[in-house]
Amino acid sequence: MLTISNRGQQMPPSPIRKLVPYAEAAKKKGIKVYHLNIGQPDIETPPAIMDAVRNADIKVLEYSHSAGNESYRRKLVQYYKSVGIDVSHDQILITTGGSEAIMFGFFACLNPGDEVIIPEPFYANYNGFACAAGVTVVPITSRIETGFALPPISDFEKVITHRTKAIIICSPNNPTGYLYSREEMEALKKICVQHNLYLFSDEAYREFCYDGEYVSAMHLEGLDQHVVLMDTISKRYSACGARIGALVTKNKDVYDAAMKFAQARLSPPGLAQIMGEAAVDLPASYFDAPKAEYVSRRNLLVSRLNAMDGVYCPNPGGAFYAIAKLPIDDSDKFCQWLLQDFSYNNATVMLAPATGFYGTAGLGKNEVRLAYVLNLDALNAAMDCLEKALDEYPGRVATGNLAAAEANK
Amino acid sequence: MLTISNRGQQMPPSPIRKLVPYAEAAKKKGIKVYHLNIGQPDIETPPAIMDAVRNADIKVLEYSHSAGNESYRRKLVQYYKSVGIDVSHDQILITTGGSEAIMFGFFACLNPGDEVIIPEPFYANYNGFACAAGVTVVPITSRIETGFALPPISDFEKVITHRTKAIIICSPNNPTGYLYSREEMEALKKICVQHNLYLFSDEAYREFCYDGEYVSAMHLEGLDQHVVLMDTISKRYSACGARIGALVTKNKDVYDAAMKFAQARLSPPGLAQIMGEAAVDLPASYFDAPKAEYVSRRNLLVSRLNAMDGVYCPNPGGAFYAIAKLPIDDSDKFCQWLLQDFSYNNATVMLAPATGFYGTAGLGKNEVRLAYVLNLDALNAAMDCLEKALDEYPGRVATGNLAAAEANK
Repeated sequence: MLTISNRGQQMPPSPIRKLVPYAEAAKKKGIKVYHLNIGQPDIETPPAIMDAVRNADIKVLEYSHSAGNESYRRKLVQYYKSVGIDVSHDQILITTGGSEAIMFGFFACLNPGDEVIIPEPFYANYNGFACAAGVTVVPITSRIETGFALPPISDFEKVITHRTKAIIICSPNNPTGYLYSREEMEALKKICVQHNLYLFSDEAYREFCYDGEYVSAMHLEGLDQHVVLMDTISKRYSACGARIGALVTKNKDVYDAAMKFAQARLSPPGLAQIMGEAAVDLPASYFDAPKAEYVSRRNLLVSRLNAMDGVYCPNPGGAFYAIAKLPIDDSDKFCQWLLQDFSYNNATVMLAPATGFYGTAGLGKNEVRLAYVLNLDALNAAMDCLEKALDEYPGRVATGNLAAAEANK
Repeated sequence: MLTISNRGQQMPPSPIRKLVPYAEAAKKKGIKVYHLNIGQPDIETPPAIMDAVRNADIKVLEYSHSAGNESYRRKLVQYYKSVGIDVSHDQILITTGGSEAIMFGFFACLNPGDEVIIPEPFYANYNGFACAAGVTVVPITSRIETGFALPPISDFEKVITHRTKAIIICSPNNPTGYLYSREEMEALKKICVQHNLYLFSDEAYREFCYDGEYVSAMHLEGLDQHVVLMDTISKRYSACGARIGALVTKNKDVYDAAMKFAQARLSPPGLAQIMGEAAVDLPASYFDAPKAEYVSRRNLLVSRLNAMDGVYCPNPGGAFYAIAKLPIDDSDKFCQWLLQDFSYNNATVMLAPATGFYGTAGLGKNEVRLAYVLNLDALNAAMDCLEKALDEYPGRVATGNLAAAEANK
């Protein structure tokens, strides 16, 4: 018998995409589905960067440099400078989306059996790359009661072993929207230096900070050899489908190792690099409109959620996600029920069960992630659906029980 | 001390790209470098597929389906039908270049410590993906004397162990240009069935067959569960920089496992998928001109090489590569010397030392790979350089020695 590999078996399917068949079935029944389940913004991709591709004079679409076009990397030096990060073009490796930056970081820095600590809930695809690399994810829990703040450093210290090689953070965070403070970033720095750990910093949502100061891992002094920054243009310029990201590090050994993985796959996508390069020339004011839009959406979403009986949603400081606690028995069942058995005004809402974002089994059962990637009218209609659904859902639990369940954790 | 991973250390650097600094230095001295070292064709990317991107009406460049746009996969069903391969759209997984198809195949089918047999010389990047996946490459040698025909099946049987899980072939071949006959493909089928092995078939050069019949691994009856086809539009449509390929398999378990790796990286490049889809609509006659051009180049290259004293080059049946045996001591030294110490009419030629394509240490020291990706005039000038260089090269060996060295193998 031909068998697939162990990692092929163990590889987790996308927790976000598993409900897709139910959404498709709902749509076939004529039900409008409000997609708050995925981080696919509806914001227009800047026409200027699409035009850069349209106007490019290309006779032969050749392989680029494995690290990405030098002209693009030199442009990115300017961009990083504008956000207070001082790097040179040969510390930037252009990747196929932020995904490939995560993968290269894992492969270049971690051995099979090594452990990475990740504050949970976390971006589910870290699990996939960890599985591919044979690396063990060690979650430590951040809690909705603190708005998903960084867990106390003592929680990190409890799980550090001789196999621990890295901490992964994402700020502003997907899925919580939490923005780490300078104090939290300094605490992370301390523990990385003390225990000799890499700090993998996923900064996909850098531009979307609404309250408080943005602190990059690369702003931390004395941490140059530890930081591997994982970046992407996907959310920044609403260009998810382009598949352009970057791995940025001042650690030359890490860069050189990542470069060998980059050489094996030859080069990142050529047309999308043109988009990325053109994006650096967008005026700084470009972000004003999307940012204002996201803030309005967040404010609407959070206030609508907290006005619902038994619902709690902390106010996220950045990105375009929020995690809410709902008076429900099981978020997987609830999200499926929303698609399969519920509609209101011939519409329903698709959410991501938070269980998929926790590494600790059993957590997230009464939480969902909402991506506020729809306009205010759609968001309001989606909240109408959710409010109605929570009234009707057969698995609704009393808020008292919820608090009791919380106390038992 | 922060250290990089073992695989990051063991990962082989690109043998083709390691000479690049010498080429850059030569160019700085004003020397024209004829690049026969990489498979980057000079053939124009079909304007129709570039126009498809230019004319696409895209407001938001969204993530596509992780398997690639369904419209593209359905189009590809037609394409595969036109080359005698009968597959459905849900047996096709669009990848970021052929590179990612190779990677997904390795990760989905092979465990760390598993062995893959590859007839050498072979595409050097298989080493990189094997290293990333923790897989051991077991080379068996095909020889220039037979034009790099498939080694005898007994050579495969000698190296098969309980860890052997797959055979990788590439026909027409990179780096040899050899095109496997139907008999050779049937022999491979037999051994895969008998020993329960996957057949990873890299068919990047399918359209470029000049002598004899093209046989795909998917043409072999009764091998459906074994075959994982790795494909790309890079060479087919001279679109290397697009980064679009495909993994095609009728083995549902393999497809489903590969799909989970595909979900982790979200989606293949969006603009390039538009190119790929448009390419299926090119008339069948599109290939006539590039094919005729490659045949002329091959004929010129092979005849020029064989006319040089002490040089032997078999006539490749496909792709756009040839491996030639030269009267030299060391192909790595020679290729570096060409860039560093030699010029003729203020020009030189860049070749790929064949050592990088062998898994067995010591092989390929008197062989180089030539990619005939330049027009006839440039190719002639490059051959003038090579002929002159072989006269002048201080490490030239007598042909007699060469034959003796060959006999000692």
